Amino acid sequence: MNREDLYRQIQAKKTMLCVGLDVDFQKMPSCIRALAENGEIVFRGREFRGTARSIVEFNKAIVDATAAHCVAYKPNLAFYECYGTDGMRALEATVDYIRSNYPEIFLIADAKRGDIGNTARMYARAFFETMDFDAVTVAPYMGADSVTPFLDHKGRWAIVLALTSNASAAQFQMALKGEKPLYQAVMEEMMEISTPDNMMFVVGATRADKLSEIRSFCPDNFLLVPGVGAQGGSAEEVMRYGANDRGGLLINSSRGILYADGSEKFADAAARKAAETASF
Amino acid sequence: MNREDLYRQIQAKKTMLCVGLDVDFQKMPSCIRALAENGEIVFRGREFRGTARSIVEFNKAIVDATAAHCVAYKPNLAFYECYGTDGMRALEATVDYIRSNYPEIFLIADAKRGDIGNTARMYARAFFETMDFDAVTVAPYMGADSVTPFLDHKGRWAIVLALTSNASAAQFQMALKGEKPLYQAVMEEMMEISTPDNMMFVVGATRADKLSEIRSFCPDNFLLVPGVGAQGGSAEEVMRYGANDRGGLLINSSRGILYADGSEKFADAAARKAAETASF
Repeated sequence: MNREDLYRQIQAKKTMLCVGLDVDFQKMPSCIRALAENGEIVFRGREFRGTARSIVEFNKAIVDATAAHCVAYKPNLAFYECYGTDGMRALEATVDYIRSNYPEIFLIADAKRGDIGNTARMYARAFFETMDFDAVTVAPYMGADSVTPFLDHKGRWAIVLALTSNASAAQFQMALKGEKPLYQAVMEEMMEISTPDNMMFVVGATRADKLSEIRSFCPDNFLLVPGVGAQGGSAEEVMRYGANDRGGLLINSSRGILYADGSEKFADAAARKAAETASF
Repeated sequence: MNREDLYRQIQAKKTMLCVGLDVDFQKMPSCIRALAENGEIVFRGREFRGTARSIVEFNKAIVDATAAHCVAYKPNLAFYECYGTDGMRALEATVDYIRSNYPEIFLIADAKRGDIGNTARMYARAFFETMDFDAVTVAPYMGADSVTPFLDHKGRWAIVLALTSNASAAQFQMALKGEKPLYQAVMEEMMEISTPDNMMFVVGATRADKLSEIRSFCPDNFLLVPGVGAQGGSAEEVMRYGANDRGGLLINSSRGILYADGSEKFADAAARKAAETASF
């Protein structure tokens, strides 16, 4: 998906919301957990039973309830890998379901990969070819040659970690390269090898105070902003300080939407939460 | 596996070699690629066909040929994820095969994961519980709270990226925190939250000149050293500058061993290459 399509979707839906599909079986509503004991379903020719069935049915319900209120979904790979190949099959089915039913949606693999060039090329294949993601999050610690293989796929994006939302983010991200904090050096040097059409950056909502400063040296790139909701960041502040003249933000909420309600009405609650988060 | 067991294995086998199981279908011997067209095998009750069959049979042959000449195997996740769930099933089967037949071997998931604590816990579950790895490589960009969840599993290890082997490693790893280069700050601060019994560091063989300096502030931790072979590093130099008084090194070679020969004698060639790499 290109940048214009993403801008148009944001303007049409009047939201910058990205829903993080961080499935955690233990946190799912009991009606969804019960499906794991309840035989199998066939979805696009493949069978799903046990935990995989619960994940697929939970994600379908969440996506159907929230797709009108968001522009992107962002499954975090950890929450699928921890269920082994069952989890990965459920992730593939989820991607397939979104692609088939909501083709306007921007799909992000939150994988935070980062490896030598030879290996990064394989990760790019995994997320852009084997799976059909628009974008993948990438860790910058190993430098430019760990990122460039993700830029060689037309219409796909690398989303590089800059300043993250967690408590220990500043521990290394505020080291200095020359006069600049490391996260700024990462952003500026990554901007030199990319364009705003194939590179975004992760900036945590818990760092809203930094967002206007970041916009002074990075006016055009989309920022993916996690940390709203369970992590304590404010979507309103993020939009006030982080939007550029066309928006340019994807504001992520995961647990606050997915687990808004533990009853059979979980999808309605998710829809309400989604509608009120990062909309304008 | 604990540190004493690893030291004992190194002394018994007289080698510090770790074989990187970076399976690449295109580089496999033609006799192994042909198996993908040749029906299925049943391995421990599960069926493998197509690419998954080739990967399983290639890894079994490589492991059988090299297990006497190495102390660890290190599959890189990218090379399995790029084949989708087929690749992940083949990885699970490979781990299972090594665990069943060579219980003394140290098993490293080269995954370079790194995420907020809540997510890092799921990755730790994926690699230490769902799969049965002894260790997982972890990227430090997000700081201590992205690493600690990997330290909570008794007898398991986090292997944190410090100074990597790729061309652009210095781009951010040589930024400064206080007076120190970032990779040194990463190592020293990670040593504060861990012990040499649950933490190792990645230091590339292409930085052999840095190894004796690193040993001055990190005498006890094992170092995982990639970059020998195809990437140009020398195992002899790594051992000269990087060994501590008990060895304390895992020296990785991947492509140089796996693809030493493209004929039906690939396993013999891999055994010879393994025997002559990082032995003492």
